[in-house]
Amino acid sequence: MRILLLNPNTSAAMTERMARAAQAALAPDARITALTATTGLPYIASRAEAQLAGAAVLETLAAHQAGHDAAVIAAYGDPGLIAARELFDLPVVGMAEAAMLTACQVGARFAIVTFAPALLPWYEDAVALAGLPARCAGLYAVRRPFQAVTEVQDDLRPEILALAERAVEEGADAVILAGAPLAGLATTLRDAVPVPLVDPLAAALGQAQALVRLGTRPPRAGRFARPPAKPATGLSGPLARWIAHREGEP
Amino acid sequence: MRILLLNPNTSAAMTERMARAAQAALAPDARITALTATTGLPYIASRAEAQLAGAAVLETLAAHQAGHDAAVIAAYGDPGLIAARELFDLPVVGMAEAAMLTACQVGARFAIVTFAPALLPWYEDAVALAGLPARCAGLYAVRRPFQAVTEVQDDLRPEILALAERAVEEGADAVILAGAPLAGLATTLRDAVPVPLVDPLAAALGQAQALVRLGTRPPRAGRFARPPAKPATGLSGPLARWIAHREGEP
Amino acid sequence: MRILLLNPNTSAAMTERMARAAQAALAPDARITALTATTGLPYIASRAEAQLAGAAVLETLAAHQAGHDAAVIAAYGDPGLIAARELFDLPVVGMAEAAMLTACQVGARFAIVTFAPALLPWYEDAVALAGLPARCAGLYAVRRPFQAVTEVQDDLRPEILALAERAVEEGADAVILAGAPLAGLATTLRDAVPVPLVDPLAAALGQAQALVRLGTRPPRAGRFARPPAKPATGLSGPLARWIAHREGEP
Amino acid sequence: MRILLLNPNTSAAMTERMARAAQAALAPDARITALTATTGLPYIASRAEAQLAGAAVLETLAAHQAGHDAAVIAAYGDPGLIAARELFDLPVVGMAEAAMLTACQVGARFAIVTFAPALLPWYEDAVALAGLPARCAGLYAVRRPFQAVTEVQDDLRPEILALAERAVEEGADAVILAGAPLAGLATTLRDAVPVPLVDPLAAALGQAQALVRLGTRPPRAGRFARPPAKPATGLSGPLARWIAHREGEP
Amino acid sequence: MRILLLNPNTSAAMTERMARAAQAALAPDARITALTATTGLPYIASRAEAQLAGAAVLETLAAHQAGHDAAVIAAYGDPGLIAARELFDLPVVGMAEAAMLTACQVGARFAIVTFAPALLPWYEDAVALAGLPARCAGLYAVRRPFQAVTEVQDDLRPEILALAERAVEEGADAVILAGAPLAGLATTLRDAVPVPLVDPLAAALGQAQALVRLGTRPPRAGRFARPPAKPATGLSGPLARWIAHREGEP
Amino acid sequence: MRILLLNPNTSAAMTERMARAAQAALAPDARITALTATTGLPYIASRAEAQLAGAAVLETLAAHQAGHDAAVIAAYGDPGLIAARELFDLPVVGMAEAAMLTACQVGARFAIVTFAPALLPWYEDAVALAGLPARCAGLYAVRRPFQAVTEVQDDLRPEILALAERAVEEGADAVILAGAPLAGLATTLRDAVPVPLVDPLAAALGQAQALVRLGTRPPRAGRFARPPAKPATGLSGPLARWIAHREGEP
Repeated sequence: MRILLLNPNTSAAMTERMARAAQAALAPDARITALTATTGLPYIASRAEAQLAGAAVLETLAAHQAGHDAAVIAAYGDPGLIAARELFDLPVVGMAEAAMLTACQVGARFAIVTFAPALLPWYEDAVALAGLPARCAGLYAVRRPFQAVTEVQDDLRPEILALAERAVEEGADAVILAGAPLAGLATTLRDAVPVPLVDPLAAALGQAQALVRLGTRPPRAGRFARPPAKPATGLSGPLARWIAHREGEP
Repeated sequence: MRILLLNPNTSAAMTERMARAAQAALAPDARITALTATTGLPYIASRAEAQLAGAAVLETLAAHQAGHDAAVIAAYGDPGLIAARELFDLPVVGMAEAAMLTACQVGARFAIVTFAPALLPWYEDAVALAGLPARCAGLYAVRRPFQAVTEVQDDLRPEILALAERAVEEGADAVILAGAPLAGLATTLRDAVPVPLVDPLAAALGQAQALVRLGTRPPRAGRFARPPAKPATGLSGPLARWIAHREGEP
Repeated sequence: MRILLLNPNTSAAMTERMARAAQAALAPDARITALTATTGLPYIASRAEAQLAGAAVLETLAAHQAGHDAAVIAAYGDPGLIAARELFDLPVVGMAEAAMLTACQVGARFAIVTFAPALLPWYEDAVALAGLPARCAGLYAVRRPFQAVTEVQDDLRPEILALAERAVEEGADAVILAGAPLAGLATTLRDAVPVPLVDPLAAALGQAQALVRLGTRPPRAGRFARPPAKPATGLSGPLARWIAHREGEP
Repeated sequence: MRILLLNPNTSAAMTERMARAAQAALAPDARITALTATTGLPYIASRAEAQLAGAAVLETLAAHQAGHDAAVIAAYGDPGLIAARELFDLPVVGMAEAAMLTACQVGARFAIVTFAPALLPWYEDAVALAGLPARCAGLYAVRRPFQAVTEVQDDLRPEILALAERAVEEGADAVILAGAPLAGLATTLRDAVPVPLVDPLAAALGQAQALVRLGTRPPRAGRFARPPAKPATGLSGPLARWIAHREGEP
Repeated sequence: MRILLLNPNTSAAMTERMARAAQAALAPDARITALTATTGLPYIASRAEAQLAGAAVLETLAAHQAGHDAAVIAAYGDPGLIAARELFDLPVVGMAEAAMLTACQVGARFAIVTFAPALLPWYEDAVALAGLPARCAGLYAVRRPFQAVTEVQDDLRPEILALAERAVEEGADAVILAGAPLAGLATTLRDAVPVPLVDPLAAALGQAQALVRLGTRPPRAGRFARPPAKPATGLSGPLARWIAHREGEP
Repeated sequence: MRILLLNPNTSAAMTERMARAAQAALAPDARITALTATTGLPYIASRAEAQLAGAAVLETLAAHQAGHDAAVIAAYGDPGLIAARELFDLPVVGMAEAAMLTACQVGARFAIVTFAPALLPWYEDAVALAGLPARCAGLYAVRRPFQAVTEVQDDLRPEILALAERAVEEGADAVILAGAPLAGLATTLRDAVPVPLVDPLAAALGQAQALVRLGTRPPRAGRFARPPAKPATGLSGPLARWIAHREGEP
């Protein structure tokens, strides 16, 4: 199977890091295509930025989803997730939703630990969107400023570990290390924290593979059925053609 | 006071209709500026379309919000509402949220009646976003196809009236006539339905005026504080400058 | 339009203070009639007192609502709100409900700050009645005793400001300054607090004006339809006649 | 032990019927004092009427609670319940709350069946006040008009039985026969309905006895602690003295 | 009436203590039969242990419920409660559920105080099972190790009292002293804590008596109707016969 | 990786059917060990039966989990799931929970369709245990009696298909075909139903593989940490030794 791993941030370094971390979570028969957004922000950190990134996700999927069995939106916060599920035919997985649903199977309540306070409202919205506020023991963010977003998992490791430990003391049964720049950190820290650590990228790839093996058909009815054809103004060619149900046309 | 009425659909006819209907809901000292989106769909009817429209709302607000005291996003479903509140300093009102909060004051439970089933998942998401599922008695849509979206309130009037009556029988204390093409219809039907009819455009203008008179300051903290400056790629000039905190620059 | 501002406390000084503060929240075409309860408590501060005040609110509305377009029950906690909506034909607005619904449009979560701990259970009941516990970041009360209820906003200003700041630190995006004796304080403090401050009196007047401009008809069905005529024993003349559907009789 | 059974309706015939029905639910060492409200409505059927009845309940309890171990407010809907718990020192039980809490022990979900649609909003509010909407399978009311409220349990028996059966088909595991005029009917119908029938009067007496045997002390802290002394205007002597903490004075 | 008091722990000393404490909560016409589990754990303290204890409860009830009017499962956490209600015809009461439903009548929010942290997840599950998380102000456990479970109420009394006081400060209106080894302690401490203390054993006996006096019939429909006959492998004789609907056979 | 597939029903024919159906959901590097319960019921269909089956699940896991990377409890309703997670160190997956969490990623709301009404209360409890009532569009069961549980998916196919279609009409975006005897049926019906069909066995295997690849450590803290050692009476040897932390001993 082939999974499209789409980084909605414009940082190619982050995409490369995620592509490397992804390998450990793939079955022998699974491959990924890793893509970086070409428009938007270097690192999404607010609901406004996620609104824009969500639009970019749709443009990118329209252009690149063909030939894939599933897609993963590789930003914690899942920009464009519901829209993408509605619009396209392949299973679309969000890192935040996948991490939380996975965490629900290894704990009654999960905490979310991340590297900057600015991310919290967005991550909190993702908890609400998934309908899981009752399962969330808390959201925690390192308060110390960092140098480069690509280095935060090294730079802020002690603070992240301390927050994970505090989350456990305050009632978490599992801890999600949230934010694309933390991909892979769970493996490093897992012996140091007394509850399961959930890596959202690994969780998303796990859910994507599970959905592909489940073999469901795309919906022709219900809330995720593809909308009827429409003319659009000012969108990229592939997305405008997809919305017009003319995706086969040049 | 001056209120920016922003139609996220690309239909100028609909904007004109709303601008006319708006007059009855304005105090003597209130004026509106009515704008039509220049990119997107003629009529938004899905979450995917709303994702794209939300991005367009941010672009339009960045270009045009200066000199206004409040903005109304004039599409039921409120594309870009949370993002706009976070990004900009003026109060931003959504037609769906405003209609529901208003309805809560004239009934324990409101119903939402609209003109096409395709709109229901989006409108239902708006109920959830507002945290009001317990106050929603049901969502109802006319099943009969219509000719032109600008004519639906005339074309489908009997069906809409019948649905409003059914909603009352099934437990609604108030009925929201949802969808920008229905703006003004509540006035026409209000004697025919035995519970209060809520016009979302009038409700949104009422809430916008209430917020302006309240005289609050823009937040410098909390979930709606403006995000820190960032460089962006591929956005329109005014929005890119606003996100970079360089809105005063050319 | 003419709005009846009904103070359910028996303190005329408080009514005067509110009548003055009200002016800033009125459109050019809006006027208020301010009334003080003639029976009950000088300052309502418990659910038992609110139960009695609610009955007094109905008596006063029966006697004085004629000729008004809307009524505001001017005690945070909204004594008699649901009963008044059911019984009378004009829109009835509660200060607590109006403040919370307004706050929901400027923040994801609001805090409530007041001047005495005895008020908290009542204010908390108002949060539940509005169905908004998920939007409430917390209730805070000054613990220091005060001299006179009419002076609390001057006397306790530093403590109230400190609580508002603490509420923001603990997660509030907006702060409601609750309790009729605090009417007008939001204007004084709004530059000192980094999130929007909501004045419940101004919010209630804003909602009342919005409801009047909405132009809804009184319900003839649903949970707020007027109850059928009944004979009553031991009530004041106007209320007994209203309940008997004989309000036109002497 | 001695239990005050307080009928907030002004119908002495209904009080007598309840006093007779009560005997079967009392332990050998329990006695009741049955009282009828002297002001208010012959039969409470709306939230407005309940607001007034709640005030009358407080007046009556102030005058008569001395010498009793617990009080039962004998109108389904529990007028004045929270206020009475806050104000007085003895356990106060409401018929609606008691019936629902009891029903939760014989079924996952209860239905409420009553004799007139006008009662439904009030009964529904009682479900919400008890925090039990998730346990309520539905509220059902006979639509046929009746002659005299004291005769409804005979007059409408077939309709009530049919509604109970329908409630079971629609998911109820237990059925509450709600409304003081139905007191005792559960005994008559219990073999005809395939799920447990809950008589609210019997349930309330059961809960009152349970609370007395539990032997708790009145709260000196928390949401039900007695409010501090206050002067009041226009209340009956015993209630004014109780609120002023001068209940021992003449 | 005769109530079966079933201790699912294998400690006979604990059963004796509960049997003594039970007397104060019984009406003159009520008697108990106290039984101790013969298989399982000396003291249940986890969900795994409760799973096993629940199976043992069913075996014991099958063997001993005949001749009783109600049964009380005398372990806070209510092992086997729903299963027992489904399987048997007499009312079955759980100590946790009964304590919480009782506490709801003397406070808006209850706290749960117990003697060991290991019990908290189980007790928390009981709050969720009863649908009462919104009524629970918190769960508190003594952190100091204890010598013998039968002595904890003497050994840890100061810590338990301190936790009850802290619970009140943090918002509890009533405090449940949870865990069978604490049976009777509420009577000792009730003057020292400023809110009502709920003894779960007394509450359970109060509810059992209330259910017996209510006189409901066993359900023949709904979620607690007895399952159809089935053959079983590897169960005790009385339970296997009961499940096979052959309970009258030898 | 090696996954233990544990059928808590005593029917070996059902185990074989599931073992065959499982193959399509496994990655190239995954293998299953299929086990059948040796005590209990041929087909679990009530909460009482599930209580007993849960105890049997613990006994079986204690005896057989060594050498496996994850376990699947292969009865929809997940008997013993929480207890097993608490007691054992490997990830434990339940078919009901896994199906619902999976369904949440292909629809906003799922329906549950099964073959007998007796199963509904148990399946409904599983929805509540997963905290997903807001995501459940309804539970549906074929009302026609069937011959043999192992033949239901052939025998009742038309009725199951009709219910799935009705569920879609009534609001479901995805349909779970629930009950171990329906394993594999989703593949057969998936082209006939216009929304994704979720096979609980495939979903559970998908989740188990995802959890294994995630590589989390067993918790040493939180709600799923292994309970301290205890002596037990009357349990099977392996389970008694595991509970006593003597699992390495003979």
